[in-house]
Amino acid sequence: MSLRKKLYEIIFEADTPAGKAFDVVLLLIILASIVLVMLESVVGINQQYGETLHILEWVITIFFSIEYILRIAVVRKPWTYILSFYGIIDLLAVLPTYLSLIVVGSHSLMVIRAIRLLRVFRILKLSRFTQAGQNLGKALWSSREKIFVFFFFVVNLVIIVGTLMYLIEGPEHGFKSIPASIYWAIVTMTTVGYGDISPETPTGQLLASFVMIVGYAIIAVPTGIVTSEIIRGSRDTNTQVCPHCLYDQHDNDALYCKKCGGRLNEDN
Amino acid sequence: MSLRKKLYEIIFEADTPAGKAFDVVLLLIILASIVLVMLESVVGINQQYGETLHILEWVITIFFSIEYILRIAVVRKPWTYILSFYGIIDLLAVLPTYLSLIVVGSHSLMVIRAIRLLRVFRILKLSRFTQAGQNLGKALWSSREKIFVFFFFVVNLVIIVGTLMYLIEGPEHGFKSIPASIYWAIVTMTTVGYGDISPETPTGQLLASFVMIVGYAIIAVPTGIVTSEIIRGSRDTNTQVCPHCLYDQHDNDALYCKKCGGRLNEDN
Amino acid sequence: MSLRKKLYEIIFEADTPAGKAFDVVLLLIILASIVLVMLESVVGINQQYGETLHILEWVITIFFSIEYILRIAVVRKPWTYILSFYGIIDLLAVLPTYLSLIVVGSHSLMVIRAIRLLRVFRILKLSRFTQAGQNLGKALWSSREKIFVFFFFVVNLVIIVGTLMYLIEGPEHGFKSIPASIYWAIVTMTTVGYGDISPETPTGQLLASFVMIVGYAIIAVPTGIVTSEIIRGSRDTNTQVCPHCLYDQHDNDALYCKKCGGRLNEDN
Amino acid sequence: MSLRKKLYEIIFEADTPAGKAFDVVLLLIILASIVLVMLESVVGINQQYGETLHILEWVITIFFSIEYILRIAVVRKPWTYILSFYGIIDLLAVLPTYLSLIVVGSHSLMVIRAIRLLRVFRILKLSRFTQAGQNLGKALWSSREKIFVFFFFVVNLVIIVGTLMYLIEGPEHGFKSIPASIYWAIVTMTTVGYGDISPETPTGQLLASFVMIVGYAIIAVPTGIVTSEIIRGSRDTNTQVCPHCLYDQHDNDALYCKKCGGRLNEDN
Repeated sequence: MSLRKKLYEIIFEADTPAGKAFDVVLLLIILASIVLVMLESVVGINQQYGETLHILEWVITIFFSIEYILRIAVVRKPWTYILSFYGIIDLLAVLPTYLSLIVVGSHSLMVIRAIRLLRVFRILKLSRFTQAGQNLGKALWSSREKIFVFFFFVVNLVIIVGTLMYLIEGPEHGFKSIPASIYWAIVTMTTVGYGDISPETPTGQLLASFVMIVGYAIIAVPTGIVTSEIIRGSRDTNTQVCPHCLYDQHDNDALYCKKCGGRLNEDN
Repeated sequence: MSLRKKLYEIIFEADTPAGKAFDVVLLLIILASIVLVMLESVVGINQQYGETLHILEWVITIFFSIEYILRIAVVRKPWTYILSFYGIIDLLAVLPTYLSLIVVGSHSLMVIRAIRLLRVFRILKLSRFTQAGQNLGKALWSSREKIFVFFFFVVNLVIIVGTLMYLIEGPEHGFKSIPASIYWAIVTMTTVGYGDISPETPTGQLLASFVMIVGYAIIAVPTGIVTSEIIRGSRDTNTQVCPHCLYDQHDNDALYCKKCGGRLNEDN
Repeated sequence: MSLRKKLYEIIFEADTPAGKAFDVVLLLIILASIVLVMLESVVGINQQYGETLHILEWVITIFFSIEYILRIAVVRKPWTYILSFYGIIDLLAVLPTYLSLIVVGSHSLMVIRAIRLLRVFRILKLSRFTQAGQNLGKALWSSREKIFVFFFFVVNLVIIVGTLMYLIEGPEHGFKSIPASIYWAIVTMTTVGYGDISPETPTGQLLASFVMIVGYAIIAVPTGIVTSEIIRGSRDTNTQVCPHCLYDQHDNDALYCKKCGGRLNEDN
Repeated sequence: MSLRKKLYEIIFEADTPAGKAFDVVLLLIILASIVLVMLESVVGINQQYGETLHILEWVITIFFSIEYILRIAVVRKPWTYILSFYGIIDLLAVLPTYLSLIVVGSHSLMVIRAIRLLRVFRILKLSRFTQAGQNLGKALWSSREKIFVFFFFVVNLVIIVGTLMYLIEGPEHGFKSIPASIYWAIVTMTTVGYGDISPETPTGQLLASFVMIVGYAIIAVPTGIVTSEIIRGSRDTNTQVCPHCLYDQHDNDALYCKKCGGRLNEDN
């Protein structure tokens, strides 16, 4: 086996001991680099250990750069990798540090490396999690129209309520402008409720109460939509195919094809 | 084809390229006019560009007015349009600007134009979204009795808890009056929690803890109601019974019984 | 028909026009009396109209007292009424005002009259709402064990988290005592989040983040329990009784009794 | 019956009157000891009754110690008990007080005694609650992959949003460091919303609005997952098929097919 093939197995796959070890080390370094950026942003720590952290950051970045170049070198179709989701993330993971030589502060963008942690699924039993993720995605996707209608309604409500509050409370009670009032309406409707802006006039508090109760009821709608889709998605359909008409969406308890009436295989 | 008919097609329909283009332009202008009102309410921007924004507002209002008049002119039954939902919204969209000549500040009501954005559904594949909206509406409507009972319970709880807190905490801890305390109870029960009013005595905090836990449990009820209705509404089964084996849980698209393979009645 | 029987029909029933009118008037007076208590608690209004509100309060209380005495007088079994749910509420509705002659401030308890509004269901189509209420109640009742286990878990979590935060943050950051810290834990776990107490040390914020995410996930549990019960409860069972073995919990689509195999009546 | 056997019955079982009485007394003492720790942490109470509380604490601790030693003495396999869940909790319940002789403040850890309250299930009809608890646990366990994928997504989102807010708002608006900003992101996403840190720049408020709406939608996902699992787990149907008509949606308690009246197989 050529060196290139061996490297490919180590870097891209997780079936061999060496490949698995590489992925585990990679994950640890990714985690370390995220913790690094966080520590660097804490004033006290930065003043004391700034120098060390800076050096470590460059060490990791150079390691990632080499890894990126190796990946391009050993893969059979480099451009497919470069333009793939993982390829773009791998590039974005090293860019911020180099960019910080030009633009001050941009190196915080390094936290985009968090997305690289997705590789964790390669070490775990991959397919089950991918399956779970896809099922969730499918459930959300098949309810996209209801969710769109729902958000359209929420956006409209938030704009109108925000403007009304601006007219009722006005800049003297913290509702400085219509956008700020819409921000308040979102904070309230989603039940976050910072309290940085809150109505002070009785009329404003009455409208706010109304908004809260509506928001409380409204949260039931997306929950209902998503739950309904997840339940539908988890219903037991199986993978058997009708031998007569090739239809393949049969319920688990089906004995005959619902499309052509043909008998399904019994050994399923 | 007469000019009137042509105009009708452009303004009211979205099937021809001209009609679609008109709708897209209209949506953009509606969006622009909403952004306009928002910007005008921001003090800094208003001081600098107030003049320009004011002129733009009138330009758009006059455009909408002409559009409104054209709509009345080209439609076959003007009164049906004028009194329809869209007709009233179209009128309300232009009134605030004219009204602002008489009543100061009323032009902010222009944000009602946001509702005009509903026209977006005409450009998208209309029917699927209408269907989604109707299904949601139906789910909410068929659970109206449960929701009514639920809100009756919540309103009673909020009134009684609010009064108790007024007696326990009193005006010296921010619970200035019973309505203000009810406002607090709503803010708490819906888990918004601004923190502008919050209990300070141990007894008050104990009652508040109780209210929060009840509120936490209570949110499960409307969610359960709506989810249950959405699931019931989204079931794809119909009421036909297999004439051969009496099985009756057939999918909507079933032609043959999945249990015995018999042909289902075709007149369903 | 005797006067007593006529009065009974007017006061207790809502089928005759007079009975219906009486109930509507009663509801309006109840609402008025609740609004009255609220207005009285607002300092500004009380100073100006205190005298008038005070007189109105006594007028309504005397009206309710007469109504209560009449109810006892016309009903066939007075003690059954007096000790019934409605009888106790009717008494509690008049007591606070009389009590206020002795104990200052106690008249605010008048808001208990809000519960009298339950009579609204007598005017509306009674049975459907009672049905809806009972279904909700049944759903909650049949999940009582799961809910009990769940709350036991939450209470334990809140006590332990509260104590940990007291040890971590201490009185100098607002966590004055363990009960106060438990109050904070409840405020946080239920996602109310007033912000009157909030962690300031990094360790405290880390634990708080953990509590929030757990609380966020935990809300899914009661929702799931209640939704599951509501769905189960709304399944279409009907009221037909098996003529052979008297079993009465048949699904809507049942043709034969699932207990004895006997044919069910076909005219259902 | 030997003394040891008698003691075993009283201490470990709850079937005899003496055993039940012992468990009830034990629960009351556990509750008392938890209240004790709480009261001790309240400054005012501690100053006045500190001495008494301190003595009571030692009395209860010695009682628990004796109980613990007795349990070891009377049980047949002491090590099995000592290493069991309950054995460890029983030990942890007495340790903090002894520890407080060495480490100041550690006696607050006594609240771990709250877990001992689990014994309450022994007095109540044990099995039904255990069943309820196990069903909940099973529902959560069987959705572990979806929940893992979900939290992975949330953690990533929170890290990236936190960093962006740190860059947008910066230390001068309270976003002191990236960890602090991530803390803010968690507070916001879970809709807790303390308001101790809140965005002040328009860009920050825009991003915050986006995060809130996403968080609002996202809560639907775990709810949907858990609800779906609880519903699946609580279904009362089994897998038996009617040998006469092949209908297969029978309730667990069905003896005859509800469709054709045929006898179901008895060996299910």
